Amino acid sequence: MVQFVGVSEIRRIVDKVGIEALLLRMVDYLEADFRRWPEFETTPRLASHSAGGVIELMPTQDDALYSFKYVNGHPYNYEQGLQTVVAIGMMADVATGYPVFLSEMTILTALRTAAMSALAARHLAPPEARTMAIIGLGAQSEFQAMAFRAALGIDTLRIYDVDPSATAKFRRNMASSGMTIVACEDSGSAVMGADIITTVTADKAHATILSDNMVGGGVHLNAIGGDCPGKTELQRAILERATVFVELPEQTRIEGEIQQMPADFPVTELWRVISGECPGRKRRDEITLFDSVGFAIEDFAALRLFRDLSLETGDYRTLDLLTAPTDPRDLFGLIAPSPMQAAQAA
Amino acid sequence: MVQFVGVSEIRRIVDKVGIEALLLRMVDYLEADFRRWPEFETTPRLASHSAGGVIELMPTQDDALYSFKYVNGHPYNYEQGLQTVVAIGMMADVATGYPVFLSEMTILTALRTAAMSALAARHLAPPEARTMAIIGLGAQSEFQAMAFRAALGIDTLRIYDVDPSATAKFRRNMASSGMTIVACEDSGSAVMGADIITTVTADKAHATILSDNMVGGGVHLNAIGGDCPGKTELQRAILERATVFVELPEQTRIEGEIQQMPADFPVTELWRVISGECPGRKRRDEITLFDSVGFAIEDFAALRLFRDLSLETGDYRTLDLLTAPTDPRDLFGLIAPSPMQAAQAA
Repeated sequence: MVQFVGVSEIRRIVDKVGIEALLLRMVDYLEADFRRWPEFETTPRLASHSAGGVIELMPTQDDALYSFKYVNGHPYNYEQGLQTVVAIGMMADVATGYPVFLSEMTILTALRTAAMSALAARHLAPPEARTMAIIGLGAQSEFQAMAFRAALGIDTLRIYDVDPSATAKFRRNMASSGMTIVACEDSGSAVMGADIITTVTADKAHATILSDNMVGGGVHLNAIGGDCPGKTELQRAILERATVFVELPEQTRIEGEIQQMPADFPVTELWRVISGECPGRKRRDEITLFDSVGFAIEDFAALRLFRDLSLETGDYRTLDLLTAPTDPRDLFGLIAPSPMQAAQAA
Repeated sequence: MVQFVGVSEIRRIVDKVGIEALLLRMVDYLEADFRRWPEFETTPRLASHSAGGVIELMPTQDDALYSFKYVNGHPYNYEQGLQTVVAIGMMADVATGYPVFLSEMTILTALRTAAMSALAARHLAPPEARTMAIIGLGAQSEFQAMAFRAALGIDTLRIYDVDPSATAKFRRNMASSGMTIVACEDSGSAVMGADIITTVTADKAHATILSDNMVGGGVHLNAIGGDCPGKTELQRAILERATVFVELPEQTRIEGEIQQMPADFPVTELWRVISGECPGRKRRDEITLFDSVGFAIEDFAALRLFRDLSLETGDYRTLDLLTAPTDPRDLFGLIAPSPMQAAQAA
């Protein structure tokens, strides 16, 4: 039997643990796995493109556990009232190849992406940062806000979205968070005075969400939205001024903001900062950029956390996804028992 | 909600439809998808190797549906009483990226592999074939026997396995099949007088299950067991005498019997035979070989069939693997409702 967690269990687990405590624990799991990055298999994801979007498989493994995530990206789903991104994930035992955990991952991906941004910012943002701008108030925005509050003590948000109803939704969801929320007229006013700028728009194009003159010295940029070929948010000149940190360089050069730059554009792997091998922020006036596209090791950490959490809270079901014949060679006997076996079983 | 089929549903469906009728329908689904092979995305599978085995992801898609299979291969699992191969599969809607069907695939893979062999043999075996040799009586063997009986009218089996208990298991499972079963002392006597020779051993090495002098003119070879790098069953000289048919050449050259041959060794893609573009068996004395390693389009067909069958019989469950917020951008509101939303919901 395989341990299974669906949307209903995720909701119960979040309710029991609390969103901020859960995000902090996600940061810990991500940090633990990023510290031991070289122990993982790192393969760029396998993408199947179609007219409406992309479907990807993102596998990784260490010595003990294998994980993969199925995830899509369909920007026009929104017009039909559907999620642009949904995901499902699985963990398996490397020694036997047997699946051990299956989970919805739409919500898990939202949680891990936000926790990953906060973990990066712990190493890259100015230590005294208390104000964050968020540009783009879609499905990921509140998760970002809560993760930065829990992990960095951000208390003020300057927010902007082209769609006022998204702003209203964000305000409603964050009403009881205790954070100061300043809704702004445009991106330019949102970033004024912000220590951290999070860009998380859904535009599937080379958009200029941030132009060079909007980004002052000392700011940390948390660029989430540019995550596939042809989709970027930052003006190229910003990248030339910033110190850029990435997950897996060969993947980010295709999918991230740095797809605008030459193939030898210098970047630092974030895991080297988290493991203490490379410095994060070096100067007060440095512009740091986490060019985030998401990587399989983050999903590995998220699955590991929810496998543990669901055992701790008891919120899981079991699924008969594995056959268990008495003799492993007797798979046929399991589905088409001989009259003698059928008589014995009756 | 996602339509789900576990081991219990598979057993009920097989019981209701009947194993032979089900295998014939699987042959039809495979044939339909092989006829339109160029409509599919064909990517070699993505393999993660470890000391104990391999875990693979096998995706494909046409214009409407995407599918992938998670499958392992751990030859030493048998020593612990575990299956050497287990699998799970999923289908999704290409237009939205939303999963629509999730299924156990250990049994489905056994059924589709046998049906695939029978479909190939319809085009490649001598038309008057009634006797098949099966060398290797593991988990796949009875499925092969039933598929060849259902699709080709094979009525006599000459069988051999190094382990007498495997032979006893095979005899027990096939007792009520009405087939004539001749247990043989060795491979050499098993193949005597056989029109079709199926090799399906589990050895993870370059084994010589069949040597050149055992294979006479006019025979069809159905080679199932050689399916990963370093694992083959046939002596090289046989390949030089045979006309070889494969699924996806670039995958088979790495994993199949033809890994023993030069990179330009001539092969025919089976789909070209099934679609009528290329001839199958051309002469009575020709040796034909289906060098089968399995390909994602076969899993696509198997998932398509069981999605249909489970709807027809009503044997499925639904899983809450998808979130459905009223506003797709309001994922956060789904797990951490504001006090106002919570009050409204109560």
